[in-house]
Amino acid sequence: MRAARFYGRRDIRVENDVPWPELQPGQVQVDIEWCGICGTDMHEYLVGPVTIPTQGNPHPMTGESVPVTMGHEFCGRVGKVNAGSELKVGQAVMVDPRLFCGKCHRCDEGETNICTKWGFKGLQGRGGGFSEAVAVDEDMCHVLPETVPLSKAALIEPLVVARHALKMTGFERGDFEGATVLIIGGGPVGIAVIYNLRARGVKRIFVSEPTVKRQGQLRDLADEVLNPVRENVAERCREMTGGEGVDLVFDCAGIAPGLRDGMDALKGRGTYLNVAGWEQPFTVPMEHFMMKEITLKVAMAYDDEDFREVVEEFAAGKFTDIAKMVTSRILLEDVVTKGFDELMTNKDDHVKILVTPRRECLEALGASEIRSGGLQ
Amino acid sequence: MRAARFYGRRDIRVENDVPWPELQPGQVQVDIEWCGICGTDMHEYLVGPVTIPTQGNPHPMTGESVPVTMGHEFCGRVGKVNAGSELKVGQAVMVDPRLFCGKCHRCDEGETNICTKWGFKGLQGRGGGFSEAVAVDEDMCHVLPETVPLSKAALIEPLVVARHALKMTGFERGDFEGATVLIIGGGPVGIAVIYNLRARGVKRIFVSEPTVKRQGQLRDLADEVLNPVRENVAERCREMTGGEGVDLVFDCAGIAPGLRDGMDALKGRGTYLNVAGWEQPFTVPMEHFMMKEITLKVAMAYDDEDFREVVEEFAAGKFTDIAKMVTSRILLEDVVTKGFDELMTNKDDHVKILVTPRRECLEALGASEIRSGGLQ
Repeated sequence: MRAARFYGRRDIRVENDVPWPELQPGQVQVDIEWCGICGTDMHEYLVGPVTIPTQGNPHPMTGESVPVTMGHEFCGRVGKVNAGSELKVGQAVMVDPRLFCGKCHRCDEGETNICTKWGFKGLQGRGGGFSEAVAVDEDMCHVLPETVPLSKAALIEPLVVARHALKMTGFERGDFEGATVLIIGGGPVGIAVIYNLRARGVKRIFVSEPTVKRQGQLRDLADEVLNPVRENVAERCREMTGGEGVDLVFDCAGIAPGLRDGMDALKGRGTYLNVAGWEQPFTVPMEHFMMKEITLKVAMAYDDEDFREVVEEFAAGKFTDIAKMVTSRILLEDVVTKGFDELMTNKDDHVKILVTPRRECLEALGASEIRSGGLQ
Repeated sequence: MRAARFYGRRDIRVENDVPWPELQPGQVQVDIEWCGICGTDMHEYLVGPVTIPTQGNPHPMTGESVPVTMGHEFCGRVGKVNAGSELKVGQAVMVDPRLFCGKCHRCDEGETNICTKWGFKGLQGRGGGFSEAVAVDEDMCHVLPETVPLSKAALIEPLVVARHALKMTGFERGDFEGATVLIIGGGPVGIAVIYNLRARGVKRIFVSEPTVKRQGQLRDLADEVLNPVRENVAERCREMTGGEGVDLVFDCAGIAPGLRDGMDALKGRGTYLNVAGWEQPFTVPMEHFMMKEITLKVAMAYDDEDFREVVEEFAAGKFTDIAKMVTSRILLEDVVTKGFDELMTNKDDHVKILVTPRRECLEALGASEIRSGGLQ
């Protein structure tokens, strides 16, 4: 079958002779319709292999190493089942792409997202969404009602990332309703956080984003868009909160100036939630951390509950205008040039690029849904 | 009166002509009996002025700058009162030495410890415990029953620091009972944390401490004393917790290797509480922070509730053997040579040195209570 496989930094190859997946007991074959390109994928492409297992260092669960098929934000339809399966051929499913052992202390506690052997399909092996089909454990398939178009369903995965971040703040539902929130970085994760915050009833959302194109898009979503290059973000946040500062910061950028702004903008005993990957050292500004007794938390992927919740809410229509996030739709054969290279060259033009291995899936959509021009 | 005043780095002077304090409305004069030397005091002596206000930069509440009288861990007896005071001359009191404005957002929320103008008597002005007397707001005086010897009461302050650290973990009482705790650094703060943990029913306490003399003392207090120079602290903690790691770490050291050990030793979703001052950058090891979704918290001083709780428990005899912490008792006139310089030269011989301006207070004690030889 066709699949895009990671061989090394700036070396992803779309190949035509990758073996079709073999079903293990308890698995179904999911025929991919759409798969998003994630920041993590880009990170691997630009500076990796970071988490992708290298030759001689296979992943402890999959036993695989490069080349691995990429793509972990994917949905599709059940293509094959084993005898006795509870799923039916043709059913639409969103896949929870995580790999976890189910045996360690953390899995025992339900903290499967921080399994000691954690991994993801599409990064650490066992197939990925940038291909025609993947073998998936049945209990990792979330059946979607036919009212949910698969052309939007791949966006569930980044929404689940953001949902987990909300959970890890430790805020209760009531805490969110009255909260004022600052988001550092208005890229795909930041936007997914905004959608989740709105779904939790948050009324005041500020976002700090340096690029002009994204600022324009964010004005529809946030209550205030701050430019960290030209403005003192913390000062502005204090102005807008009666001098107090914001209750909660989500770091969706992973850079030192953002960390400083965010901690400066927090009120006393506020919470700073990091949902970004960091290439630089995460050096905490002590004058804010200590003097305001800030709680620093972090979100790593998501767990079963997060996934289930978002799928249910997505199916119930709570994220209706989420398709705004899609700035381009492309074919699998173009994933390097129109996907990875496009995001490298014109990052700020895009929020989310979705990839399909099926030309008919692309052709079924109107031009406005394809939006291959990126952000206006 | 006599007082030890900070003029600059390595320049503390015991002077005989410092003005007696003048009582403002709502204040009483406390005649000092005992005052402890704190790590913060040592920090100011060795590398300061750090938080002590310098010439031209007076503290926003006290209006004072160097020279300031030092000492903030102090108790004594009421020496003078204004008409209508609720306190009586001769009453024994432990003083909450904090300065806060009572007007800012944080004070409004009861978070007086992180008041935007915060300060301490003994560091930022309005007198200090290394003197004969201090004017203190009545409501910052905690009356002690006569069953509590003032010779021990100054130890209440470091116990309150530790109590606040326990509170800031976010753990409920029930959480503590079953918890396994690692303490990084077995100095005065680490020991005060241990006493507080025992008072909360914690059964398993490990402490990581590199100096041999302190290790000896800690064996009476902790369940396991680890040597971070010779042992892999995290590995040992996992061995003692069925492979899982500890629930909670208190950082009472403030050095990078301790931070690494502590975060490595935590279980998934464990809590890291920093109660140390940091001279080095606080750079978080992301492989532990992210991959285990650690919660990072910090404790800054203490609030009214912490102080009240510990005074009550101290008076009720819950910290009976705390006087073990005192490794030397000295006179105010010797505070530089036998206090600050002794701690600089022979740090590991000491936990807490207590200072009195009254020779009779020292002479009233037996040799075993004076323990001027330091740790054995």
